Amino acid sequence: MINGEQGGVIHAMDRAVMYGDGVFRTMCMRQGQVKCWPQQYRKLNADCQALDILCPAQHILEQELRQLALDEPDCVVKIIVSRGEGGRGYGVPASVSPNRVVLSSPAPQHPIRFWHEGVKLHVCEIRMSHQPRLAGIKHLNRLENVLARMEWDDASIPEGLLLDADGWVVEGTMSNIFMRVGQKLITPDLSTCGVAGLQRDRILKYAPTLGLTAEISHFTLPTLLQAEEIFVCNSVIGVWPVRQIGAASIAPGPVAAQMQRILESAID
Amino acid sequence: MINGEQGGVIHAMDRAVMYGDGVFRTMCMRQGQVKCWPQQYRKLNADCQALDILCPAQHILEQELRQLALDEPDCVVKIIVSRGEGGRGYGVPASVSPNRVVLSSPAPQHPIRFWHEGVKLHVCEIRMSHQPRLAGIKHLNRLENVLARMEWDDASIPEGLLLDADGWVVEGTMSNIFMRVGQKLITPDLSTCGVAGLQRDRILKYAPTLGLTAEISHFTLPTLLQAEEIFVCNSVIGVWPVRQIGAASIAPGPVAAQMQRILESAID
Repeated sequence: MINGEQGGVIHAMDRAVMYGDGVFRTMCMRQGQVKCWPQQYRKLNADCQALDILCPAQHILEQELRQLALDEPDCVVKIIVSRGEGGRGYGVPASVSPNRVVLSSPAPQHPIRFWHEGVKLHVCEIRMSHQPRLAGIKHLNRLENVLARMEWDDASIPEGLLLDADGWVVEGTMSNIFMRVGQKLITPDLSTCGVAGLQRDRILKYAPTLGLTAEISHFTLPTLLQAEEIFVCNSVIGVWPVRQIGAASIAPGPVAAQMQRILESAID
Repeated sequence: MINGEQGGVIHAMDRAVMYGDGVFRTMCMRQGQVKCWPQQYRKLNADCQALDILCPAQHILEQELRQLALDEPDCVVKIIVSRGEGGRGYGVPASVSPNRVVLSSPAPQHPIRFWHEGVKLHVCEIRMSHQPRLAGIKHLNRLENVLARMEWDDASIPEGLLLDADGWVVEGTMSNIFMRVGQKLITPDLSTCGVAGLQRDRILKYAPTLGLTAEISHFTLPTLLQAEEIFVCNSVIGVWPVRQIGAASIAPGPVAAQMQRILESAID
């Protein structure tokens, strides 16, 4: 659905096509309801603002989501907002008008053991570049993630771990990552690269309900491998415990399962 | 023209839309002929290969360019090649098939003095990030260029100068840059960021015909400002002398005009 039209088309001059000039969100729809929709919209709006893109009004997107739900009440929804069409080269035309895309796809079918036993992570060779102006934003310039995902082709490994050029742990290719050290739940500082996902925010928010102190900081892969527990998160999978990173085994722990339940049931 | 169809449409699941997963070229068509077409195709092909995208065959693109030339014999042509449609998340489907877009637009109308007297450059605040895996490639992840171009809005300033995070000069937002120091013609090393344009290659190649030694190296803005002559280049503008960078005036020199003539007339 493009600008509210079923089967609408994207013009080749759309700046999403030409420059990746836009933002997106990926969300879970269950029984016709998008999970954490108000929070998702707030993130979409914040990301648009960070790039000076006019965000579509919440009620317009809600109307389109309701229409989508009639056909596909249980699916993964992706919303893309592009800055709009045209401009001479990189310059933005004064009259630019944002385009919005609302797409549905079937929920990915991962083995149930990914949630119960945990997952293996490939350690990606590509290093994420530092760009403070884009860090944290879920924008459409995702070639680093694509190249990272092309590094392995093994269905038993659903995710890759991304480090930055300095060796700091950043995230997964499609998820954020947490480690537990004692009573601290630590996730990487994303002020120079990475995408600050909604479930990362929620885990930071709910950590204290499990008696954990949430912390955002830089840490390396060797530090990560010494953690007592590791998990990754996003809005489609929820939380996956991590049981292996490269060749290194990771001890299971109780927090991943607790956090699965909290993210599933908590009303923010 | 999309995959050879006039007015064809781009699917929202195209990876160019979703991830900027593709490459492009911008070229000049005059009297129905694309300037330096064999070299442009070679660059397109090399950029596709660097991202493991299957490049459309040369004869197919040539047929589409001939068709375009019937309606628009004098224009700017943009070719976009995307990796294709779909995939679960960032993963590339085994059966992916590239999509090609051939677009024409009127040549931009710049004042003639830009070629004769030179141009002013805005010094961009945004710093280009280091990503050796993408450096040099004309790929579709161009948000840094968009943000750079949004920094100024003054029609008398047609280009901005980009530095990297370490303070090295990289390029213009839509051009490459050269400085002359004595008999040396120096352009930035683009092994960690930037786009290595075709006219940059040609200038490096033809420098010796003007008795100049071509050199690729890192240099800072203060070093650039001490150059005896500076110019920027791309396939649409050819060569513009630079007469001002930020508040600093730059002396005019003879090489820009000489290089304008060489790029215009040389058969590679």
